[in-house]
Amino acid sequence: MKDMTDIPAVMTEIGRRAKAAAAELAFTPPDRKTQALEAAADAVRAHRAEILEANARDLAFGRDKGLSDAMMDRLTLSEARIASIEDSLRAIAAQADPVGEVVAEWDRPNGLHIKRVRTPLGVVGVIYESRPNVTADAGALCLKAGNAVILRGGSESFHSSRAIHDCLVEGLRAAGLPEDAIQLVPTRDRAAVTELLQMTDDVDVIVPRGGKGLVSLVQREARVPVFAHLEGIVHIYVDASADPVKALSVVMNAKTRRTGICGAAECLLIHRDALDTIGQGVVRALIDAGVEVRADETLQAIPGTVAATEADWGCEYLDSILAAKVVEDADDAIAHIRRYGSSHTDCILAEDEAVIDRFTARVDSAIVMVNSSTQFADGGEFGMGAEIGIATGKLHARGPVGAEQLTSFKYLVRSDGATRG
Amino acid sequence: MKDMTDIPAVMTEIGRRAKAAAAELAFTPPDRKTQALEAAADAVRAHRAEILEANARDLAFGRDKGLSDAMMDRLTLSEARIASIEDSLRAIAAQADPVGEVVAEWDRPNGLHIKRVRTPLGVVGVIYESRPNVTADAGALCLKAGNAVILRGGSESFHSSRAIHDCLVEGLRAAGLPEDAIQLVPTRDRAAVTELLQMTDDVDVIVPRGGKGLVSLVQREARVPVFAHLEGIVHIYVDASADPVKALSVVMNAKTRRTGICGAAECLLIHRDALDTIGQGVVRALIDAGVEVRADETLQAIPGTVAATEADWGCEYLDSILAAKVVEDADDAIAHIRRYGSSHTDCILAEDEAVIDRFTARVDSAIVMVNSSTQFADGGEFGMGAEIGIATGKLHARGPVGAEQLTSFKYLVRSDGATRG
Repeated sequence: MKDMTDIPAVMTEIGRRAKAAAAELAFTPPDRKTQALEAAADAVRAHRAEILEANARDLAFGRDKGLSDAMMDRLTLSEARIASIEDSLRAIAAQADPVGEVVAEWDRPNGLHIKRVRTPLGVVGVIYESRPNVTADAGALCLKAGNAVILRGGSESFHSSRAIHDCLVEGLRAAGLPEDAIQLVPTRDRAAVTELLQMTDDVDVIVPRGGKGLVSLVQREARVPVFAHLEGIVHIYVDASADPVKALSVVMNAKTRRTGICGAAECLLIHRDALDTIGQGVVRALIDAGVEVRADETLQAIPGTVAATEADWGCEYLDSILAAKVVEDADDAIAHIRRYGSSHTDCILAEDEAVIDRFTARVDSAIVMVNSSTQFADGGEFGMGAEIGIATGKLHARGPVGAEQLTSFKYLVRSDGATRG
Repeated sequence: MKDMTDIPAVMTEIGRRAKAAAAELAFTPPDRKTQALEAAADAVRAHRAEILEANARDLAFGRDKGLSDAMMDRLTLSEARIASIEDSLRAIAAQADPVGEVVAEWDRPNGLHIKRVRTPLGVVGVIYESRPNVTADAGALCLKAGNAVILRGGSESFHSSRAIHDCLVEGLRAAGLPEDAIQLVPTRDRAAVTELLQMTDDVDVIVPRGGKGLVSLVQREARVPVFAHLEGIVHIYVDASADPVKALSVVMNAKTRRTGICGAAECLLIHRDALDTIGQGVVRALIDAGVEVRADETLQAIPGTVAATEADWGCEYLDSILAAKVVEDADDAIAHIRRYGSSHTDCILAEDEAVIDRFTARVDSAIVMVNSSTQFADGGEFGMGAEIGIATGKLHARGPVGAEQLTSFKYLVRSDGATRG
């Protein structure tokens, strides 16, 4: 790490290498990528002791730094968590290769045969916080899609990420692929992030994965295109036509199964006419389950609720807290979601098809759920294998970002000498 | 135009209105959009005298300003050109509506039914140069895709664009759609462009359509995501295996049919082994047709050629000029295209399938042609109806940008009360 002081030079060199690797990966046959991912999984298994050792150093650093329990938990690796990293690599290895897939194909009266074919994006920059497993998932998904990737993990997971990255490189080497296909930024210096965000010549897209601080830094500084990843300010609207049994189980699951994931419910909107029939019971059940319910004026009548303030609308708690509010109807709920939502995942509980249609047409979130727990907002649950994250922007990728969303396409046009009249 | 001096205020108001219109357009039924486009076509027909009058003012302004013949030609409207604007509006009206289309649909073992459904992008900003017809094409395509659009035409076509825009608004009004769905920036002040490029809260994407100056301004100043539109530095590679007859007719058509369009060939790369059999004949035919051939050292032996300089490689002439060079093989051609191309359209003339495969896999341009004239690089020829332009970036849109490329998607997830275990 002695010569890591000239960050612009370090990053320029990384970018140049990534671009060269991407040019080669673009036409690497599927089986070579599969082989690299399988070999990387083998390496993770073989080197789990070293990974745990590296993780112990990160945990010590984290403790000294006074990280929160939640952050320490995300940072912590165990035999079981390392096994799931290995499983994830094998799952991505087993997925269909998106590159070269013919997405559409047609003939034209002018004599042309046109194919729209998937291609890699090129070079992807992934900036994430201290979750060591993202190193493996992001590296593997980018490789699967034929992209070179530059990984920049959180500084607290520096050693763990490096140990996992070593395994990915071992996989690349075993398959004879360029080691520069998956690079990890070798410095904790934050200037490297700033640099990465400006590398328009060598980086095609940035995928940020993290909290508000990271996302706003990226939005402020990026010159490279970004797949927007906002927080998951997940709303559930309980319509007057909702089924009480489904409503209770879906809301409870959406809030309490795991509170720290982006698909966890953060705000409950209850139709005035469902207040007595469903709303009260649901709110009581939440309170009984230990959830702090921050309620609007009407719902404050329910014992055990806490008064909500303006700051509670649009808040991502990622904790055992839920904002709750009575709305006049579906349109009122839609207006609230438009104002305070993050276009991640929102849900309606209803049986009235006209209301469901209105809600699903008007709520413009990446994922709109009907009578289903928002905890399903996850690439794995969608059948995409692993994901880099859930995109909340509307350009290119939206929702869970798997290998397919990390590709572009081109047109292959063929004829037997056709000329234009 | 008296109160148009506070450009930021003018643009903020336009952005706010566009966003409100977009929210309504997102769930406007297809037939209402069709009706608006048909009514706009009727209005263009009814008001052709006014459009020609407005165009005469622009032409007078252009003459005073000393515009080039090519620019004056692009600016000029005639009865026939107005009729083709009308036809284009009717063609877009007749196209399938992309919004709401179910792109994919599947069931999951967890009980979820998942649909991926096309949605509008939101608000599109289109910045273009002085081609009045783009006002109609861009406005109509954005509307078809359910987007609100903010049009900023070249200052030389100010009155023509306004007259055409009036017809589009007449169409919106006839169908009861918000007039703010298609707005034209009402000032020639260049500060309006700068403003538009920064409006990240209200504008979802910018589509620039124009030459180098415009594109570099956009790349420098945009904070809003951009569909990159670079020049068409179109290469044709004649392989040793090329068919001489096809080669001659395709190259001649690609260069001479129309020299001013982005799909016109700008650089010819000839395999050394095809030099005597094909290359010489093609170069002579080009010279006979009045094309100035700027040749590398080897090709300068052909009488009538002009010596190329370094500036000729990667040059978009849009004129009756062609750069020409001998290459060692397909890989040499590919390397030249990587170095000097703009990822727009490139072509191989060959019969050897292995060489064709190598070229099409390794040349990463939006359109890769085989044995076909590059003049086909056009949304209409591809069967997409009209186009806003040809995107050369790899994110979201690539190649001809029609209504479908102006959409995003969302996931509609439904179950009968499924919760996650």
